[in-house]
Amino acid sequence: MIGVFDSGLGGLTALCELVKLLPGEDFVYFGDTGRVPYGSKSADTVIRYSTEIMRFLSGFGIDAALVACGTASSAALPTLQREFPIPVFGVIDAAAAAAASATVTRRVGVIGTATTVRLGAFERGIKALDPDISVTSVACPLFVHLVEDGFTDPDDPVTLAAAERYLSPLRGIGIDTLILGCTHYPIISAAIAKTLPGVRLISSSKTAAEKLAASLREKPRRGHGTIRCFVSDTPEGFESAGQIFMGDIPLGRAEFVDISKY
Amino acid sequence: MIGVFDSGLGGLTALCELVKLLPGEDFVYFGDTGRVPYGSKSADTVIRYSTEIMRFLSGFGIDAALVACGTASSAALPTLQREFPIPVFGVIDAAAAAAASATVTRRVGVIGTATTVRLGAFERGIKALDPDISVTSVACPLFVHLVEDGFTDPDDPVTLAAAERYLSPLRGIGIDTLILGCTHYPIISAAIAKTLPGVRLISSSKTAAEKLAASLREKPRRGHGTIRCFVSDTPEGFESAGQIFMGDIPLGRAEFVDISKY
Repeated sequence: MIGVFDSGLGGLTALCELVKLLPGEDFVYFGDTGRVPYGSKSADTVIRYSTEIMRFLSGFGIDAALVACGTASSAALPTLQREFPIPVFGVIDAAAAAAASATVTRRVGVIGTATTVRLGAFERGIKALDPDISVTSVACPLFVHLVEDGFTDPDDPVTLAAAERYLSPLRGIGIDTLILGCTHYPIISAAIAKTLPGVRLISSSKTAAEKLAASLREKPRRGHGTIRCFVSDTPEGFESAGQIFMGDIPLGRAEFVDISKY
Repeated sequence: MIGVFDSGLGGLTALCELVKLLPGEDFVYFGDTGRVPYGSKSADTVIRYSTEIMRFLSGFGIDAALVACGTASSAALPTLQREFPIPVFGVIDAAAAAAASATVTRRVGVIGTATTVRLGAFERGIKALDPDISVTSVACPLFVHLVEDGFTDPDDPVTLAAAERYLSPLRGIGIDTLILGCTHYPIISAAIAKTLPGVRLISSSKTAAEKLAASLREKPRRGHGTIRCFVSDTPEGFESAGQIFMGDIPLGRAEFVDISKY
């Protein structure tokens, strides 16, 4: 069984990839909908919340965990890897590797939440692989809310105006590859692509899911293809809201958990 | 001493009014920055959080409290008034009374968070005063984030595009008065006014502060004009971010409190 968590629903983009890559595997997903978003909160608070969630998920006897949140991966991954005796994956390393291998101009852009950009983990990940790659990181705090509030049409004037504001500094500086450093961003990738034509977009959800799946491929798996979901706000509306992130993979109801007690 | 709380920093717009109206009074402010925003969360969760905060504020021996948050006032006010033995004010009643007395066309608009609009407390407040007033309520979930992420210039194209999207259904239906049913909204009132020219805007922060101040005016007050602030995320950045909401009233540093323990 694999545990996956996010500040809210964005991590479902990674769960969706994992379900496709590991048919028959069992998953337990936690979305911290009672405290979402993480991206404007401090690293200390995000570490505290992530630790509570990992304690909760560990109770299911999970074999591995995916921190399917750019902010929590940036702030809390080393702590979680130290504190929990199972493989804990984040969304940083695989995206950094994919970007470093994809860029021809040796100039990469990173977009994420305010806390993700401030912590600089994607940038360090790329530089560790190739210090000569130039990395420009831009915080796009509004993007999470545009996704959660349904501004997801590729032609949405609000989303395009926000994308123009945030992303225009990335134009004309030779960037050919952009990491979507927040698991919500794949949902508005069409608007991002319109604003930065010709730039290759790397989904940190997808690359993280691929890395985790590859690490398990050699091992015999026994599961029943179940998905259990938990949230920290009341679960009403989770199923319909979550389906936006899951495409045609059916998502059941979620159960409430009082996560601050963990 | 008066306790004031909000999901985050928006309630400072009400604190700012209170400080002007009650010079010499002592205030304790709590901003739930570790769990902000409330507007997309369920009523049950908002009641739970608001109760924890009132328990914390009660420890200071406050004489009265202002729930300076449209969502918390809509969801939690009756519970808080029942559970705590001091006067607890919300932002609903005074704004409803101001709107009912201001409208000439007998058509009033209300804007607020998704949860505020779903709960309908402003609408009930107006109808209780005059059942013949027609009320149209619109949820504007992105507005809180536009304020918190600094999209506050009256000509900001992102804010104007969002205002156009949310508020155009309120044009041409005879509304002459609009309640800003969220304590963040006064910060972008210029963009709202541009989108709805000729409509009178009622700040629920301002009317609530006036009502609370009037209730205390007859009683002898003894205070030192102090303001203590607490937050549930780390307090770094509170002072500078909070100043946007406080105008020229100086705001000191905030202290951290682990609010889920209350």
